Amino acid sequence: MKNIYFTPGPAELYFTVEGHIKNALKEQIPSISHRSKTFQGIYHEATSNLKQLLNVPDGYHIFFTGSATEIWERILENCVEHKSHHYVNGAFSERFQGTAEELTKKTDTETAEAGSCVNPNPDLIAPDTELIAFTLNETSTGASQPLEDIYAIHQAHPDKLIAVDAVSILPHPDIDYTQVDTVFFSVQKAFGLPAGLGVWIVSPRCVEKAQNLQKKGINIGSYHSLPSLLSKGMKDQTPETPNVLNIYLLSKVCADMLSKGISKIRQETEYKAALLYHAVEVHPHLNAFVKDDAYRSKTVIVADTQIPSSEIIEKLKKDNLVVGSGYGDYKSKQIRIANFPTHSKEQFELLVDKINALK
Amino acid sequence: MKNIYFTPGPAELYFTVEGHIKNALKEQIPSISHRSKTFQGIYHEATSNLKQLLNVPDGYHIFFTGSATEIWERILENCVEHKSHHYVNGAFSERFQGTAEELTKKTDTETAEAGSCVNPNPDLIAPDTELIAFTLNETSTGASQPLEDIYAIHQAHPDKLIAVDAVSILPHPDIDYTQVDTVFFSVQKAFGLPAGLGVWIVSPRCVEKAQNLQKKGINIGSYHSLPSLLSKGMKDQTPETPNVLNIYLLSKVCADMLSKGISKIRQETEYKAALLYHAVEVHPHLNAFVKDDAYRSKTVIVADTQIPSSEIIEKLKKDNLVVGSGYGDYKSKQIRIANFPTHSKEQFELLVDKINALK
Repeated sequence: MKNIYFTPGPAELYFTVEGHIKNALKEQIPSISHRSKTFQGIYHEATSNLKQLLNVPDGYHIFFTGSATEIWERILENCVEHKSHHYVNGAFSERFQGTAEELTKKTDTETAEAGSCVNPNPDLIAPDTELIAFTLNETSTGASQPLEDIYAIHQAHPDKLIAVDAVSILPHPDIDYTQVDTVFFSVQKAFGLPAGLGVWIVSPRCVEKAQNLQKKGINIGSYHSLPSLLSKGMKDQTPETPNVLNIYLLSKVCADMLSKGISKIRQETEYKAALLYHAVEVHPHLNAFVKDDAYRSKTVIVADTQIPSSEIIEKLKKDNLVVGSGYGDYKSKQIRIANFPTHSKEQFELLVDKINALK
Repeated sequence: MKNIYFTPGPAELYFTVEGHIKNALKEQIPSISHRSKTFQGIYHEATSNLKQLLNVPDGYHIFFTGSATEIWERILENCVEHKSHHYVNGAFSERFQGTAEELTKKTDTETAEAGSCVNPNPDLIAPDTELIAFTLNETSTGASQPLEDIYAIHQAHPDKLIAVDAVSILPHPDIDYTQVDTVFFSVQKAFGLPAGLGVWIVSPRCVEKAQNLQKKGINIGSYHSLPSLLSKGMKDQTPETPNVLNIYLLSKVCADMLSKGISKIRQETEYKAALLYHAVEVHPHLNAFVKDDAYRSKTVIVADTQIPSSEIIEKLKKDNLVVGSGYGDYKSKQIRIANFPTHSKEQFELLVDKINALK
């Protein structure tokens, strides 16, 4: 019997992916040239389906990289000459900030208590800040920054670029992209694809910034600089031979999601999250790690465990339900459960039943 | 009826890949954590099978990236502070050199005539050169630099790092890795995998160079810097969530190649290349582009066409045989044919029969 993966990425494949992979093999998609019309069609379908699904405005671009980790680096290379400002809510937002330091940029950092988010104060942002980095959904803690916090900072600092790490949460949030400049995610989380593809949404302002840095002779990278990605992207191509199979799968999964309807996906996500948080709240061995309801992620639910998390994980595993351990220092003290579009209401009800039975 | 892709990458999948993908789906490989023991086992199997297949010495490392294009960038970031020396035999070696310029490094460049290779003269390498870049197999022209040329430059300049772009040729050449410092390829060529994975073989000297640059405060990148790759690689892990499915497939295809035997693969490659070059030589509409036998690639055979290449490509396409067009300016004047391990002798004999029938 197959497992159901509720791990927060890599996660359960979207339920249509296996069929799409079989079709891709039949159509020999992995053998086509990335400079062919067939590939350009796939690229166009993937980006236009994504724009429609996420309601990305005209003029914004969608580019592909190897991972979201790569996008941290590319944003900082292309959009920051000297200094970025980072809101750190956990291990992944900390790595975004650390990436800036590795690239020898200066950073200002505000750090939240574990299991919470920084309440951003626009007055604490230095005038020489070029980019402000938010992590919408901290996969390590299950703390989710409210979109309104991000928009408020944008409105107070309209001259600065706003970057939003949306790994492990998109397509759930209905982001107003006109109030942010770059948003990114990796496909192995809520889109339910095999890992190996990052998706980078970019405003025209980011491209201008990169072009200006390049004119000043500043190193903004090579094949994956924004000018290079844009020059190929205009032709529905990529600078390198990309992960063609995953771009094909993304186009198909986005089409499936469009066909289901994004509002239905969002409603189901809310329902499943409510179900699981309730189960955690009333459970004798579990407590929601994120105390403030306003910061509770709908897509990565993290619970403190009163008994070693491995006991809970092993018991659920016997029913072929795979949930994640805590992240880093919380490994043995927490479980993390993904609530992605591929997880059906029935699968969540089953999971909740089995969690209740652990009492 | 399915096509047989003789295009020089993306190319025909290795004949066992479809079965391995189906097994991967059955085993839910795309859903496993990249921090799990299962993944570590896959990583270990892939790197150790590759080391055995290619005879990579102990102490050398194998790392994974998104593409070989990425590896151009990473080599230059990690192994060059000021200056690299490039032998340019075609469009891809030119892009390696261009990547150095984009990264604001200085370069010295020697350029061969089209369809040939530079005959490297050690005296032309400036004393302040840190890295010397060869392209073993120029996919754009079918010109292949003899390994002896590379070793001679290494012996004349043992203090300098030697980088070898082995895209579209490995596993064919029996490289003496002790005479080079870094070798790389992408899996969608002769290994017959879906695109989206670069393989980077690295000597301890490259790692030392990167560590020294880092100590000097020089930007060597972030997650895919050599120190970062090494720190995770020691644990059979990657810094980011990688293309897990492709690393799995690579481990399996390397096992298949080991089971067949690398010497048999090499013999068959030689046989098929001889067959095709002969067919090209005697054909009224075709001429080998690379005139000097010493520079003729065994894995990417390029022919000038006396009639528009599209006519030949279309005719072969009717028999489900897909060959590549010329590269860049040669698009309509040449065909390019890949001779990779997945192509059987029988498939090559069929191709040659059909090429002969075009007379």
